Amino acid sequence: PGDRVAIEPGVPREVDEFCRSGRYNLSPTLFFCAPPPDDGNLCHYYKHNANYCYKLPDNVTFEEGALIEPLSVGIHACKRAGVTLGSKVFVSGSGPIGLVNVIIAKMMGAAAVVVTDISAPRLQKAKEVGADFIVQVKNETPQEVASKVESVLGCMPEITVECTGVQACIQTGIYATRSGGTLVLVGLGPEMVTVPIVNAAVREVDIRGIFRYCNTWPVAISLLASKRINVKPLVTHRFPLEKALEAFETTKRGEGVKVMLKCDPNDQNP
Amino acid sequence: PGDRVAIEPGVPREVDEFCRSGRYNLSPTLFFCAPPPDDGNLCHYYKHNANYCYKLPDNVTFEEGALIEPLSVGIHACKRAGVTLGSKVFVSGSGPIGLVNVIIAKMMGAAAVVVTDISAPRLQKAKEVGADFIVQVKNETPQEVASKVESVLGCMPEITVECTGVQACIQTGIYATRSGGTLVLVGLGPEMVTVPIVNAAVREVDIRGIFRYCNTWPVAISLLASKRINVKPLVTHRFPLEKALEAFETTKRGEGVKVMLKCDPNDQNP
Amino acid sequence: PGDRVAIEPGVPREVDEFCRSGRYNLSPTLFFCAPPPDDGNLCHYYKHNANYCYKLPDNVTFEEGALIEPLSVGIHACKRAGVTLGSKVFVSGSGPIGLVNVIIAKMMGAAAVVVTDISAPRLQKAKEVGADFIVQVKNETPQEVASKVESVLGCMPEITVECTGVQACIQTGIYATRSGGTLVLVGLGPEMVTVPIVNAAVREVDIRGIFRYCNTWPVAISLLASKRINVKPLVTHRFPLEKALEAFETTKRGEGVKVMLKCDPNDQNP
Amino acid sequence: PGDRVAIEPGVPREVDEFCRSGRYNLSPTLFFCAPPPDDGNLCHYYKHNANYCYKLPDNVTFEEGALIEPLSVGIHACKRAGVTLGSKVFVSGSGPIGLVNVIIAKMMGAAAVVVTDISAPRLQKAKEVGADFIVQVKNETPQEVASKVESVLGCMPEITVECTGVQACIQTGIYATRSGGTLVLVGLGPEMVTVPIVNAAVREVDIRGIFRYCNTWPVAISLLASKRINVKPLVTHRFPLEKALEAFETTKRGEGVKVMLKCDPNDQNP
Repeated sequence: PGDRVAIEPGVPREVDEFCRSGRYNLSPTLFFCAPPPDDGNLCHYYKHNANYCYKLPDNVTFEEGALIEPLSVGIHACKRAGVTLGSKVFVSGSGPIGLVNVIIAKMMGAAAVVVTDISAPRLQKAKEVGADFIVQVKNETPQEVASKVESVLGCMPEITVECTGVQACIQTGIYATRSGGTLVLVGLGPEMVTVPIVNAAVREVDIRGIFRYCNTWPVAISLLASKRINVKPLVTHRFPLEKALEAFETTKRGEGVKVMLKCDPNDQNP
Repeated sequence: PGDRVAIEPGVPREVDEFCRSGRYNLSPTLFFCAPPPDDGNLCHYYKHNANYCYKLPDNVTFEEGALIEPLSVGIHACKRAGVTLGSKVFVSGSGPIGLVNVIIAKMMGAAAVVVTDISAPRLQKAKEVGADFIVQVKNETPQEVASKVESVLGCMPEITVECTGVQACIQTGIYATRSGGTLVLVGLGPEMVTVPIVNAAVREVDIRGIFRYCNTWPVAISLLASKRINVKPLVTHRFPLEKALEAFETTKRGEGVKVMLKCDPNDQNP
Repeated sequence: PGDRVAIEPGVPREVDEFCRSGRYNLSPTLFFCAPPPDDGNLCHYYKHNANYCYKLPDNVTFEEGALIEPLSVGIHACKRAGVTLGSKVFVSGSGPIGLVNVIIAKMMGAAAVVVTDISAPRLQKAKEVGADFIVQVKNETPQEVASKVESVLGCMPEITVECTGVQACIQTGIYATRSGGTLVLVGLGPEMVTVPIVNAAVREVDIRGIFRYCNTWPVAISLLASKRINVKPLVTHRFPLEKALEAFETTKRGEGVKVMLKCDPNDQNP
Repeated sequence: PGDRVAIEPGVPREVDEFCRSGRYNLSPTLFFCAPPPDDGNLCHYYKHNANYCYKLPDNVTFEEGALIEPLSVGIHACKRAGVTLGSKVFVSGSGPIGLVNVIIAKMMGAAAVVVTDISAPRLQKAKEVGADFIVQVKNETPQEVASKVESVLGCMPEITVECTGVQACIQTGIYATRSGGTLVLVGLGPEMVTVPIVNAAVREVDIRGIFRYCNTWPVAISLLASKRINVKPLVTHRFPLEKALEAFETTKRGEGVKVMLKCDPNDQNP
């Protein structure tokens, strides 16, 4: 048998200027394993560029390996956000992507992370993975939510990671972020949004998006190998391969956080 | 007589976290010499914090000294934009602030600068101060302007400096900027604007504003002393002090670029 | 009674270019509370610039407050080193400064930290505060130590924090650090040292020193308030104020890690 | 006939972690066209990775194309040095590499560049390519040279680019550089050198080397195409291909700056 590896799904087909300068995720030549026109890998045999296959150490399970992809979104977002020691971070939205951002922001030394969502159970999950504060929002205005965030943190956050894509939440993200800070847009919503751009501009709040991830696999594998990161709470459902259809339908219903397909009939555990 | 100095108008009243970390322009304690409630200095005697007064070398004229303030807007914008050797830069708007951004971007090593405006004479001024390309816009869509910018440059610019504040121009700035690049918002328009934020986010085009300037006076003075920068084309009108009213009215009519009040009756020249 | 505060001992007397750009620790005008010619604060009443006094939250003890100073050395060093998520870090020397660097590097997301020292008990302390690996060195050559470090980490570290100042250790730091990485010099030894500078240069290993710290108090206080950092293992001795002499002599003998003077007779505990 | 291209001689054979993060010059898999064991391209037909061939615009001559390689050393060094608008730069050594650093530093907006050398004619060349100040050194101590550099600049330089590799010059570079600045080591000398490392460390003067270059070809081509850079003074000798031997011997004797082989019998001009 070959090596146990995790594959990074995005692989540039050419070495262009984006690749040479370390931002290969932006290369227009990118092959990405899944969205059309590129095929995915739900198949028996799959070939992938070896330079984008990463060996898993023996003490990293396949299930952890499968979670590198969502973790990577958090790693890339928090790196682009500049999360560092002592950061106060506001994560907007407590779905799977919000949760990985909570995990990663804490791992990067954030002193306090506050999460907002409309769903109490989702916020509970945020607590479970390490959020210091949670705020359930209902129909407050963006300014009101921003004010609540400041109130629970004791100061405005330097960093906001917006994971919903909802216009009102992006607005909240701008109002909430401390002058000189950064708002990272992870969630994707409508093409055009109306935002208080002058508020962001004159307070030098940078607005940065992310396109998936870049240079995150080695980082995630190091963290998993060091046992410093606990991704187990992210997996809420597990299905054997033969129940794949059921697994997809669970995901489709928006249940849980991550739904895992287990290929090895002898390993149906975390 | 004392020293010949240029004053930096913004002075923090307290040493807070913004000051200690090198971004004093964002300090909420900032005194700024002019906008209410702070008084300006149209008066006989004026006292200013000595730490924010910078000696002018003998070979820098008072008029050059007076132009450090507008130059500083360009310096701060181009530094926030990350202009560097070989950059392709798009400056949107050819008013005084657009022009200083052209001058500074070229000085920082930009390989090509393209300027857009609706006014042909203003674009002519851009050429005069160093723009490589000019594009007169009429009623094109933002995507069409972006496309023209790419066409004259031969590639998309990594950096866009938006100096108009107009919603359509901000949209253009997003469409025009190369993936992984930066859009700096210098012009200020309406509080809320509608922008294609997903387009910026998924191409990792950073959107950054500026609040005036920070750490720019020593830079500007070094440049002026080195005689490497020619700011003369910026001054289109000069008035002796006793014609100050006329000078203000010229400015109010939007004529020319910079209108200079000359205090020394024996020095009415550049 | 007034506020409970931690004082940052270094305070610039003037706002000069270093201060304005966020590196006030480098200001030649710096007052530093202790080394001659500046007086220290072993006295009943002491006045300190309010901008460099930081309020301690109620849940941060005085003892924790007193440890902000050594923590700051680690924070400044690890920030200058660029420690980030997934970093492999080599800390050379397991004295008090080595230990704070271990603590801080782990908090910033380092995936693995290896510490070297000649003293087994000191290395034990490193383990206690979070080191992943320890290597006791005897009379190996610098290349041999570098090789051992690589061997326990499974790769060369991107970052080396040198805390001894010993010439052979600085040499080791250069040989040990991965191409493109950073060697931070924290320990101070003889004025002139002989180092394999070409080895560092052609592998683009940056060599950076630190001068105390800068912008670290707010970070340290946030971390202490969040209860994410455990500094208790750093204090090995506690003396009531009246036994100050004994405390100083303990320190002089090089015993333990940090020797704490407790001013409040009712609070002689951690 | 095919495209007119400039080739970048260093090409990684594998996409490893260095390549993926934008520092392909550090990849241990690098093929480099010339030094053993890799063959050079003094041959009739030569095949090179197309991703590292860059089209020359029509208005860039072959001779300019041939100078991209030495220019790249300056570009990489000045980028690593962080040269930016208003920088005061000290270039140590006025050979070919010193000269390209002068050219590039000025293009990046340096306010003043001072060059030292022992040879008056070489210093004259530095003047010719744009140096603001030149200092001929004889047998001064490193501290004395540092002091002269400060004296002609009117302040200590933030950046020193050391192009000689001589131990005394590296020492000078440390003493000369302003606190918080950067010393870039370009020249390579003996393996071990003795340097005042504490002086650099406690003033936070970063010491950074370079390994050739990375991501410089597109920058150099943009600059050449924009006609903003004049590389003609760098070429002091030109030989037709059939006099290649003579050309190599001229280089070997250390004459002039750059010795050019002209392959096209009809184009023996700049």
